[in-house]
Amino acid sequence: MIFSCKRLGLSSDARVIIIDDDDAFIINAKPGDRVKLLHIKPNGEEGKETVAIINTATGTGVIKPGEVGLYDEIWETLHLSPKDRKVDIQLLSKPRSFEAIKRKVKGKELTTEEIHDIISDATDGALLPIELAAFVIGLEIQGASDREVVDFANAMARSGEILDLGEDVFDKHSTGGVPGNKVSLIIVPIIAAAGLLIPKTSTRAITSPSGTADSMEVLANVAFGKDEVLKILKENNAGIFWGSSVGTLAPADDALIKIEKPLNSDPFPLMIASIISKKMCMGVKKMVLDIPCGKGTKFTTIDDGRKFAIRFKDIAQKIGIEAICLLTSASQPIGHAVGPAIEAREAMYLLQNPEKGSTSLRNKSTELAGYLLEMGGKAPEGKGQELAIEILNSGKALKKMRGIISAQGGNPDVSWEEIKIGPHVAEMKASKSGFITEIDNYHINQIAKIAGCPAAKKSGVDVIFKRGSRVKKGDVIFKIYSDSEERLKQAVKYYNQHPPQRFSGMTIEKI
Amino acid sequence: MIFSCKRLGLSSDARVIIIDDDDAFIINAKPGDRVKLLHIKPNGEEGKETVAIINTATGTGVIKPGEVGLYDEIWETLHLSPKDRKVDIQLLSKPRSFEAIKRKVKGKELTTEEIHDIISDATDGALLPIELAAFVIGLEIQGASDREVVDFANAMARSGEILDLGEDVFDKHSTGGVPGNKVSLIIVPIIAAAGLLIPKTSTRAITSPSGTADSMEVLANVAFGKDEVLKILKENNAGIFWGSSVGTLAPADDALIKIEKPLNSDPFPLMIASIISKKMCMGVKKMVLDIPCGKGTKFTTIDDGRKFAIRFKDIAQKIGIEAICLLTSASQPIGHAVGPAIEAREAMYLLQNPEKGSTSLRNKSTELAGYLLEMGGKAPEGKGQELAIEILNSGKALKKMRGIISAQGGNPDVSWEEIKIGPHVAEMKASKSGFITEIDNYHINQIAKIAGCPAAKKSGVDVIFKRGSRVKKGDVIFKIYSDSEERLKQAVKYYNQHPPQRFSGMTIEKI
Repeated sequence: MIFSCKRLGLSSDARVIIIDDDDAFIINAKPGDRVKLLHIKPNGEEGKETVAIINTATGTGVIKPGEVGLYDEIWETLHLSPKDRKVDIQLLSKPRSFEAIKRKVKGKELTTEEIHDIISDATDGALLPIELAAFVIGLEIQGASDREVVDFANAMARSGEILDLGEDVFDKHSTGGVPGNKVSLIIVPIIAAAGLLIPKTSTRAITSPSGTADSMEVLANVAFGKDEVLKILKENNAGIFWGSSVGTLAPADDALIKIEKPLNSDPFPLMIASIISKKMCMGVKKMVLDIPCGKGTKFTTIDDGRKFAIRFKDIAQKIGIEAICLLTSASQPIGHAVGPAIEAREAMYLLQNPEKGSTSLRNKSTELAGYLLEMGGKAPEGKGQELAIEILNSGKALKKMRGIISAQGGNPDVSWEEIKIGPHVAEMKASKSGFITEIDNYHINQIAKIAGCPAAKKSGVDVIFKRGSRVKKGDVIFKIYSDSEERLKQAVKYYNQHPPQRFSGMTIEKI
Repeated sequence: MIFSCKRLGLSSDARVIIIDDDDAFIINAKPGDRVKLLHIKPNGEEGKETVAIINTATGTGVIKPGEVGLYDEIWETLHLSPKDRKVDIQLLSKPRSFEAIKRKVKGKELTTEEIHDIISDATDGALLPIELAAFVIGLEIQGASDREVVDFANAMARSGEILDLGEDVFDKHSTGGVPGNKVSLIIVPIIAAAGLLIPKTSTRAITSPSGTADSMEVLANVAFGKDEVLKILKENNAGIFWGSSVGTLAPADDALIKIEKPLNSDPFPLMIASIISKKMCMGVKKMVLDIPCGKGTKFTTIDDGRKFAIRFKDIAQKIGIEAICLLTSASQPIGHAVGPAIEAREAMYLLQNPEKGSTSLRNKSTELAGYLLEMGGKAPEGKGQELAIEILNSGKALKKMRGIISAQGGNPDVSWEEIKIGPHVAEMKASKSGFITEIDNYHINQIAKIAGCPAAKKSGVDVIFKRGSRVKKGDVIFKIYSDSEERLKQAVKYYNQHPPQRFSGMTIEKI
């Protein structure tokens, strides 16, 4: 049945359309049913199509018979305009892939075709959120064979487009969970300065105060289409992009993350397939995987991390990607800064002052970069980190970073002190003298988020003293920056209730 | 934050509200987040509250700042009126019960308190559909201990109100899957005529062409509140009600069914808890459970049915309900009629003409009734069915049924031939002579639904010849009734493509 589209100016996390309830009766649909929308152009040609969920209007004039109300997400997917807004709507039955999901729930091994169907339907929106939830939970409980994970990775990669960047493409990835992990901003220019190709795609923050893409965006643009990405890579051997903007990049992943996040479920098979599929799309052949282990990460114990690492390495190899996996400590932030702008500032400071910048940031960045340099044949085994430090100290990494910033439309001459933070700031002082023995990442993240991260890029925190530091009563040990006085006040209140730095000799709990 | 409510005149399967995106920013909510709505009365008192999901308006005038647009479901829940429409909206975090769901996903045994939390949050809408999906799938895979099932049944029963109807309350229940199962319309009047109390709550069709409530509604009203139910029971010792209308009746069940149905998942623990909780709400102490086994039912094999039956009986006993479970054949319809009105007609025909009515309907009804009569001490063991037949043949069951119809506001003098069906009818003839060897329930249901069931009450089918019947070429073997000529045409087309009666000697498949 042909409908005329009305843009509702509403935004939802679901893909919803609204039609009159009499029309719904005619096409045999009730609220919650899924339908196919096909754009019919003025010349009668078929345009884009998508899947949506039906809501119905019960006759108060919001939607007239023959009209369909579209939420913004759907209007944009179909590329409609006020003059070109006819769609054909047809009821869809449960997709075949749901049978495959039920087979996984029952503990069966899925065929390659079933896996392809699930991933393709998840990408198109043909599977309902509750059906995808059944899939994610089924997979969490029943697991998957290596063969299935390889099939998932392949299917997810093919949900996008696979770039062919030649034989030797390098990358670094982290499974996340450590605040202030801005190592990519150091590693990428080092690797590229050594002459290796490193097309880094990164994420924006989802639950953390800042993602690599958020920090890089302080220095340059990060959202580019495929052709621009290729041009930037040609100029510099490197780029730091927001993955979701590279339209070709495994869109299946986004559809699944929308379900996994709220369910707090990230089954190993999907975690591995997701990372590998994104690397496949960028043509990566050799990579280092940083696996932080400990409280607040995906791997509570080193054992969990090791199990994951072994499986990841195996499956990557089956796909043709050589991976080195590193289990790393997640006990406190890398460097001191947490927040988009303040992290960019800390990274630029290290690039500009290699011998004065944060030790932990320098150590972790050059260690990871070292393994990549060894894999790329630029340094003999065991000598990679030395070379990485040399490239950093020589100023070549800084020069390469300025080249990347320039190619991505930023100011290549930016110096760390020009990167604005705040403007509101609170300095927190030690209430006693002593050693700092423990750092609570969770509270650090909370304080940064209350201060406005990641949306307010200039908000953030500076963990001035970390574990093992000796501080005197009255020393400034923590700074909070915010774009808003009110948010700063709330962040300070939270800090006082949950001090993230713990001193030796402090009572942990009084009962 | 206080909002003024606007009724959108929209209907959704989700509990959705819409606020301006700037307002959403202020209360820190994004599309998909859950919020609590609390009705603030003109005198400042607090009214009803409910949980809803946020969608946002992006400035096209549908919703103004300070306004909240309510889907009909929410408007009605809060009992708002155009002059009394202030609500307080607050962002809710993930409920504690979600942690319990994750524990079940990980295979842990839940505590009584955790089970209570899950059921209570499911009832209130505080758990999102994808979270409930995780719960249902987790339970399907990990199962539950008898103790947990007892806790689930208790929690579900307490989500409503438990009626106290005294010591001896009887009931009959079926796990479903057989077309035309109108036995309750025969059993209830037999049991009540024998002097036992049987407050039968039943469902409307969800995926089938007719539920007991749909058929009963052809004869009388079925939607009653608690007080009316008590009055009807007092008059007749019996009533046949639509369960969902008795507001006190385990509303948790409805919330879970909304997720289980589309996921095609009905985990044993929830299936058992659901049945028992509804019986608890009606104060049932003794019951017969009819468990059809075979293709199209919840139990593909007799073994599956037996496992379920043993567990059900055990758990019912722990709750204080004595249950007899009967594994029955699901190979063909009970009686011949499928569809709300035509089933009511077949049941009334049997009550009016006990010796001429459908043999299978009489046999199954009196057998089940017989067990209840024995449990109630009205007949010695092994003699219950005889007594049931005697009550049916004597006309006492008919008289009791007329009493029930009258109490429920129907015409007590109705005769079977006055129950209207059709008016459009198609007579399907045998294309050859032979024995009917197989009946396909699935196709029978499909034909009835295409003809308009259950919404069009006068639509339905009459399976004139069932398994084992000898028919001659040209005999009318199947009739289709419909309220619409167009639907009748489609149903006939489906019948011809998928004849539900199979003849001996017919090729099943040619390869």
